[in-house]
Amino acid sequence: MTSLSDLPIRDDLRGREPYGAPQNHVRVELNVNENTHPIPDDVQADIIARLGAAVAGANRYPDREFVGLRDALAAYLGHELTRENIWAANGSNEILQQLLQAFGGPGRRALGFAPTYSMYPLLCTGTGTEWVAADRDADFEISARHAAEWVERVRPDIVILCSPNNPTGTPLALDVIEAVYDAAPGIVIVDEAYAEFFPSGEPSALTLLPGRERLVVSRTMSKAFAFAGVRLGYLAADPAIGDALRLVRLPYHLSTLTQAAAEAALAHADEMLAMVDDIKRQRDRIVDGLRALGYRVSRTWSNFVLFSGVDHPHEVFDELLAEGIIIREMGIPHSLRVSAGTEPETTEFLDAMARYVARHGSPRAAAADTAPVG
Amino acid sequence: MTSLSDLPIRDDLRGREPYGAPQNHVRVELNVNENTHPIPDDVQADIIARLGAAVAGANRYPDREFVGLRDALAAYLGHELTRENIWAANGSNEILQQLLQAFGGPGRRALGFAPTYSMYPLLCTGTGTEWVAADRDADFEISARHAAEWVERVRPDIVILCSPNNPTGTPLALDVIEAVYDAAPGIVIVDEAYAEFFPSGEPSALTLLPGRERLVVSRTMSKAFAFAGVRLGYLAADPAIGDALRLVRLPYHLSTLTQAAAEAALAHADEMLAMVDDIKRQRDRIVDGLRALGYRVSRTWSNFVLFSGVDHPHEVFDELLAEGIIIREMGIPHSLRVSAGTEPETTEFLDAMARYVARHGSPRAAAADTAPVG
Repeated sequence: MTSLSDLPIRDDLRGREPYGAPQNHVRVELNVNENTHPIPDDVQADIIARLGAAVAGANRYPDREFVGLRDALAAYLGHELTRENIWAANGSNEILQQLLQAFGGPGRRALGFAPTYSMYPLLCTGTGTEWVAADRDADFEISARHAAEWVERVRPDIVILCSPNNPTGTPLALDVIEAVYDAAPGIVIVDEAYAEFFPSGEPSALTLLPGRERLVVSRTMSKAFAFAGVRLGYLAADPAIGDALRLVRLPYHLSTLTQAAAEAALAHADEMLAMVDDIKRQRDRIVDGLRALGYRVSRTWSNFVLFSGVDHPHEVFDELLAEGIIIREMGIPHSLRVSAGTEPETTEFLDAMARYVARHGSPRAAAADTAPVG
Repeated sequence: MTSLSDLPIRDDLRGREPYGAPQNHVRVELNVNENTHPIPDDVQADIIARLGAAVAGANRYPDREFVGLRDALAAYLGHELTRENIWAANGSNEILQQLLQAFGGPGRRALGFAPTYSMYPLLCTGTGTEWVAADRDADFEISARHAAEWVERVRPDIVILCSPNNPTGTPLALDVIEAVYDAAPGIVIVDEAYAEFFPSGEPSALTLLPGRERLVVSRTMSKAFAFAGVRLGYLAADPAIGDALRLVRLPYHLSTLTQAAAEAALAHADEMLAMVDDIKRQRDRIVDGLRALGYRVSRTWSNFVLFSGVDHPHEVFDELLAEGIIIREMGIPHSLRVSAGTEPETTEFLDAMARYVARHGSPRAAAADTAPVG
């Protein structure tokens, strides 16, 4: 049998493993930051109606410029954005890949602040871009001064700021973005995949776009719109950014079905965002519940929670899995990540954690070794 | 206003124009090799039913391994292929992009035989792969000896053979593929996007797969399955090829909707292939009709026809467009390409061409300047 190493694969890919969380399907899945609320029935019905019309014309190539979808995304974002400011792709990973193809690549360098979204270095590898990982403080946060110093030192062609950060959930203040932009010679991407989970009234990096033609704010419909299966990422930026991506995008990259489903869901934005409010309540229950059990919990503006002071993370993972609950080990020592579920799922998780602590004792001792309990 | 040239775009992209045929929408669209037959109503109904089920679970990420779809594609192709031999992506352009990412890239080289599919050099640029264009004979065909000599001279990491070739429609004999494979040090891709339009009984390059672990046969559902809007390309190869592509694919690259729609259509393969027989009949009418009008017509195994000996291709294009019929200028001197339509569309095209010749005279004089009438 031929193995991968028998093939003339690129040297920089040899010995690597593909990205991906295990695809275990269990009763309570809180491992990949999905929106565990199904799409409401009336929204599903509207999506299916529009898909029906799309199927009738599916023998033709889709609108390569996805004008209707860009209009709908601009209207959803507000901030006086128009279709000229909007670009979309099959998930925000493809958005980032296209940005790296246009502005990164061989001989160019991207900077991020680790621990952060693990796809960033993989997307850099895939596009031949050098990845430089700067650091964060003990609370996984970054200050404007710290970030700008790294930018001045590295002189990156691209900076990727994850706001809030994955897998820590920690927010990023707008003054950090401003300082990075002022220091950066190249493109600054703010990945706002979880922006709808910001505390009410907190401003998005979208407010910083006017006058900053190198700033890109990327978003996704996977989380707030319960659309992980549909794969719709998008960005807002100066129109020249879209022109650059038109040079590297595959023609007709967004299918007729994707365009139709996304437009239909955006027409129900108010109803979808009502689910977001419930998810934020469940997230806050997790924060409070884990703190009450003695864990250190990172500040979170997302739909997930990183908690630390875990003596034996893999044991917690396994014992929860045995109860039909899956969460995520992220490779951060003594830490685990859990996504906010529906109210019953969240209760199941918190009850299982309480039982774990009852069996194995409070985590306070271990937490005290590393950092104060938050 | 910021322009593209104000942004820190890669130097190799400066001054380039994005790929894409004009998106004019007219009455008879025969310009981009679509299947102009809509999907039959009963197949549409089945697709929509499966999409409904997919929407109900669209809050979750799709199956990253698209196992059901790979099973369905393997069953459709036959040749004792199994899911382990199959990989799929958003259109065969993404298939090729992933192959170039894994086996091409900076310092590596791809070889093709021009004129050929114009995305090949663009995909090479997008992945930093050097593109080398070999040539074809006066009939746009290539012999085993000619092809193998080019491979020996260039020593490419990747050879891309388009079978039948786009935009010429010309077939590629299996002995050419065998000779190229034997001479090639790297991956050999046979792009069979139009394989369903082969003459009845002609073998696919799929028959060459056993024992050739560097051979890849790529296909698409865009043409035979009338699925250009759905974006589903796929390949058959040694399982190690799929392992290589798992290192460069974006996780969850195939949406829940794409997987569901493609599986549903594949369940109706017989009905979809009946449309193919009609398209082949219309293609043959175009070949005969244009020859009768005095044009030179390339041999074609696809759903389109390249015809030459056109004195003023842009004038023909414009006069047809004025009648609501769009065909394609491909940049090949004195030539135009037309896709086979439905029976009435094909009749409209041939009647319009006959009127053009009646107005402007027979093309025989011009054709005689360049090459014999076929």
